Amino acid sequence: MRFFSDNAAPVSPQVLQAMLEVNQLDTAYDGDRWSKQLDGRFSELFGTQVRALWVPSGTAANCLALAALCPPHGGVLCSRDAHIQNDECGAPEFYTHGAKLMLVEGQGAKITPEALRGVLGNIRNDVHQVQPHAISITNATEYGLVYTPEEVAAIGDVARERKLGLHMDGARFANAVAHLGCHPGDVTWRAGVDALSFGFVKNGGMSAEALIFFKPELADVTLYRRKRAGLLLSKGRYLAAQILAMLDGDLWLENARAANVAAQLLADAAGAHRLVHPVEANEVFLKATPEEAAGLRALGFDFYDWAPGEVRLVTSWDQAEAAVRPLADAIAKLT
Amino acid sequence: MRFFSDNAAPVSPQVLQAMLEVNQLDTAYDGDRWSKQLDGRFSELFGTQVRALWVPSGTAANCLALAALCPPHGGVLCSRDAHIQNDECGAPEFYTHGAKLMLVEGQGAKITPEALRGVLGNIRNDVHQVQPHAISITNATEYGLVYTPEEVAAIGDVARERKLGLHMDGARFANAVAHLGCHPGDVTWRAGVDALSFGFVKNGGMSAEALIFFKPELADVTLYRRKRAGLLLSKGRYLAAQILAMLDGDLWLENARAANVAAQLLADAAGAHRLVHPVEANEVFLKATPEEAAGLRALGFDFYDWAPGEVRLVTSWDQAEAAVRPLADAIAKLT
Amino acid sequence: MRFFSDNAAPVSPQVLQAMLEVNQLDTAYDGDRWSKQLDGRFSELFGTQVRALWVPSGTAANCLALAALCPPHGGVLCSRDAHIQNDECGAPEFYTHGAKLMLVEGQGAKITPEALRGVLGNIRNDVHQVQPHAISITNATEYGLVYTPEEVAAIGDVARERKLGLHMDGARFANAVAHLGCHPGDVTWRAGVDALSFGFVKNGGMSAEALIFFKPELADVTLYRRKRAGLLLSKGRYLAAQILAMLDGDLWLENARAANVAAQLLADAAGAHRLVHPVEANEVFLKATPEEAAGLRALGFDFYDWAPGEVRLVTSWDQAEAAVRPLADAIAKLT
Amino acid sequence: MRFFSDNAAPVSPQVLQAMLEVNQLDTAYDGDRWSKQLDGRFSELFGTQVRALWVPSGTAANCLALAALCPPHGGVLCSRDAHIQNDECGAPEFYTHGAKLMLVEGQGAKITPEALRGVLGNIRNDVHQVQPHAISITNATEYGLVYTPEEVAAIGDVARERKLGLHMDGARFANAVAHLGCHPGDVTWRAGVDALSFGFVKNGGMSAEALIFFKPELADVTLYRRKRAGLLLSKGRYLAAQILAMLDGDLWLENARAANVAAQLLADAAGAHRLVHPVEANEVFLKATPEEAAGLRALGFDFYDWAPGEVRLVTSWDQAEAAVRPLADAIAKLT
Repeated sequence: MRFFSDNAAPVSPQVLQAMLEVNQLDTAYDGDRWSKQLDGRFSELFGTQVRALWVPSGTAANCLALAALCPPHGGVLCSRDAHIQNDECGAPEFYTHGAKLMLVEGQGAKITPEALRGVLGNIRNDVHQVQPHAISITNATEYGLVYTPEEVAAIGDVARERKLGLHMDGARFANAVAHLGCHPGDVTWRAGVDALSFGFVKNGGMSAEALIFFKPELADVTLYRRKRAGLLLSKGRYLAAQILAMLDGDLWLENARAANVAAQLLADAAGAHRLVHPVEANEVFLKATPEEAAGLRALGFDFYDWAPGEVRLVTSWDQAEAAVRPLADAIAKLT
Repeated sequence: MRFFSDNAAPVSPQVLQAMLEVNQLDTAYDGDRWSKQLDGRFSELFGTQVRALWVPSGTAANCLALAALCPPHGGVLCSRDAHIQNDECGAPEFYTHGAKLMLVEGQGAKITPEALRGVLGNIRNDVHQVQPHAISITNATEYGLVYTPEEVAAIGDVARERKLGLHMDGARFANAVAHLGCHPGDVTWRAGVDALSFGFVKNGGMSAEALIFFKPELADVTLYRRKRAGLLLSKGRYLAAQILAMLDGDLWLENARAANVAAQLLADAAGAHRLVHPVEANEVFLKATPEEAAGLRALGFDFYDWAPGEVRLVTSWDQAEAAVRPLADAIAKLT
Repeated sequence: MRFFSDNAAPVSPQVLQAMLEVNQLDTAYDGDRWSKQLDGRFSELFGTQVRALWVPSGTAANCLALAALCPPHGGVLCSRDAHIQNDECGAPEFYTHGAKLMLVEGQGAKITPEALRGVLGNIRNDVHQVQPHAISITNATEYGLVYTPEEVAAIGDVARERKLGLHMDGARFANAVAHLGCHPGDVTWRAGVDALSFGFVKNGGMSAEALIFFKPELADVTLYRRKRAGLLLSKGRYLAAQILAMLDGDLWLENARAANVAAQLLADAAGAHRLVHPVEANEVFLKATPEEAAGLRALGFDFYDWAPGEVRLVTSWDQAEAAVRPLADAIAKLT
Repeated sequence: MRFFSDNAAPVSPQVLQAMLEVNQLDTAYDGDRWSKQLDGRFSELFGTQVRALWVPSGTAANCLALAALCPPHGGVLCSRDAHIQNDECGAPEFYTHGAKLMLVEGQGAKITPEALRGVLGNIRNDVHQVQPHAISITNATEYGLVYTPEEVAAIGDVARERKLGLHMDGARFANAVAHLGCHPGDVTWRAGVDALSFGFVKNGGMSAEALIFFKPELADVTLYRRKRAGLLLSKGRYLAAQILAMLDGDLWLENARAANVAAQLLADAAGAHRLVHPVEANEVFLKATPEEAAGLRALGFDFYDWAPGEVRLVTSWDQAEAAVRPLADAIAKLT
């Protein structure tokens, strides 16, 4: 009964099945018939013309996007708690050749237009200071909060005003959309997003994420960067197949909903006073004393300590109510 | 009937089966029980203590190895025809932060100690010139030739004399060993190789190559570089499983032998006068006029034109004699 | 009557004279007889064996030092107000190939062992997070404060404990030593500093700073990096001459004392209540309303607004009492 | 009597005088009144609107130009004998973040449109190969040959056809123009050159080269790169002054003519049969046996051995006939 990470979950059977089905000779790299469907399928999904590239990791998707939006001498504004800042071992700096992450404060890893403007206001416009070129937000955030279309649009306004690119790290984009119940275009390109890392691996995929460019021309140079980074796998069809399977019948939404429901079950059991952040996606940050955490672990539940007096529980696509109920009951008893 | 590339071939059933078997919850990244077996399994295979990391592409394996052996201000000696020079879109320069590839001439992409010494002799030892730090050879080469243990050892001697690291691009290492019939240690660490890109994808794998360090300490920093490059996939167990399946029962050798046999069949049909290079692994470079090439294509065979009057045929693990015989017959009729 | 920056001041006559004296044919780059004296002269000055390289800018000195102490995947701890963070357009990231600056809070751009340990304590030791490799402090700081030998040693202890390199940005090192009245070794290598950017340009030089390595072996690779960055000027003797002239008869100390005295004159005139920071070197941060600032400017004094209600006055080596007295009087009248 | 390099020569008295004249307080970096004259003065000289930046070395000028013309994933075509390939320790790769130099063969370090087209014709247009983005030629070349306006224009045509930027390394541009007797615009922008490294240091300057952009918009980003590389010296007026002094009264041409005349004197003494290349600028490559070279050295002449049986003699701006005559006589006696 592990609640460490949705990364640890197995792969959806539909995804595996799709991989078996492409197990035949075809063109290498991304010249195969499945890879070629990505642009079209994502254009349909988002209701606008996009370019879509498979990549084998979320870090790769994020950093190719940042490299497309920010030159080596530029800066990227992001939350102090952003994955790109804390959990990618400097991959943004590697891919951008040394751009600087400019940290913005905010509750639950969520940044506001006001906070952004505050940081921007402190940057002198001269060659001695790194100039901002892009903003990156995570939706759902690293603390499980969800930006609404309106909130993204307000950040998109700042981006437009200051001529900054806007990237969305959507490692849990599916969970965000499942929570919002909106059209995926509403919370992305219609709100000013230029590039989206659309995550599938945490949501039932195996090794394929999609990098979506709402400004299609950004994809051209990215194709070279993807190859140059060793990310253009030679048997790309097995990645394309994963993504296509996730899109088929909206499996991506179905899986995300299941994970969100499971998290909600835990949140309800905990009660508001125990929650560090509102639970909007599939992550639950719980106030718990070391004794309480130890008690839960003694019952067989595994999870990360996140901060003193705080633990993190992550649910995943494969957890039906029965899988989560025991933990929910245990949490309810803590109170 | 395609002979474009072994990259286009399907995945071995044993590999797929192994991937299905790890489809269960486990630790993310490389903390799972399968990833943890790699060091041990490859140490056994090579007969010495090694560190082994999975990566999702051969380019990634090559360039992480080069970054471990050469600083940004250094140079890497390689064949003018090396994959790292011609087919990786500058990935070595990206991963090493701008090291310089120093090109060595040689027949069939094979370099000799003499040619190496010639290039080395022309480099002034001062801060104005890039100084060499490593040698990279490909085995089997890009033209399907195989370095023997003695030939590698002779290059290893140059490396030792000049204090250069020695990397082997083994995208088709299995085909080389299958041809040589030697112990895999003989043609690597016993001959002075420090790092090996051990390819599986062209040989029945899906998306996992192994980067082997015979100097185990080189792995430590590489772990950071792998993460930083977006190559540390979160569900790493599906990569580890592929590699373990390829090692089980020496599937890697069995598959490579099959591809080599298929190539030999074509070579025999062609006859020595038609062969641009001796056929030692699973690639056949054939002299063919445009008319002859067109004739073969009209019969349903697909392959690359390689140079004027020259075509490339690549066989793969899944081609039994029946799959290759029609092409062999067609080639035999050309003559 | 400009108090913008010590960068704007002229060059000491002794420095100019020395440049004229080397105006003769000699070996190019750093092979001339003056460049060759640097190691010896600085070893004498610091009382230990050092390697000393001329470079044409403080940014270059800082960033070559950081590149010697921190790999591309590492991090450098520094003050949030450090010059390397705010005023070098990302040069540290350029020279280190993307290392991350890890910001530490502190009054007057001065960091404490406690603040350092706080930041260090929040860094997880895994491959997902950038790991710290070096600390950089500025002495005198960007706000004109001076670290004592004891304060540097306490930071040196943190560096040693955590196996971090320690760099000192000494753009105003002379002003710091002039204030401390200590041996220059006391506040550097005896306190754990590995590399020092020893500034001369703000202190009467023209275009030469010295990069001092107290771990001499760090210089070896730096020679390549200096060339590779286009910093190995072909007529290096004119840089070496500047530095040697600054060392002759302790001109560096004499000039710095003059600037410090001038700043003290302003500080005394202002009184403690007007000072944002204690004045220890040659920078005065003054509380002044916009009206007061305008009043001073109307009298012909030029300076930067630094923050709301705060102005910066920098004195330089060439300002004798007579040059500063009018401003001191004007400040005294404000009160 | 040293003929090692024009880098070893002293600085012109007019240049020194100009440096003394700016020895007064002014704005730091490039905000001073002299730096601000560069755009205008060079626009006049070239007869078109240009942007002109001072930098402290030729390597810096070259590599900032290349970074402006070629992205990290691109390639730069240049002579196999180019300074950027052989003598800058990988600075082009550092500044461009890993672009690849693509070597073109040619006599005397001079490349032809045919040779360029040959190399270009071998580059596959796919994401697996580095794509060319720029051409760099050196005028006068590393072997003292001079491209005529027509020859540059023919290369400019290739650049335009293939949409490549065109850079000229003009470390000895003055010597080239002095030889050609043409308008400096004829051999640069009118012939398709986008960026010129205009060298002054080898020609009587001390530490200032000019980077000229004939496409003025290329300067905007370069200002950030210059700062980021530590090349924006804080007392920039001493660099601007050098350049302005070289432009005043066409000192640059006068000095170059003197050096060329001196070289011609040596060439005439040697006779055509002894010259490895025609002598067009200020470099003489002489066939000489080891005994002959030793004989010249015994007479007090110093110079580099360049290749077996070949020595290099470089003349400089300060060598009047009297300074060269003894060597000319000695060479004449060899024959």
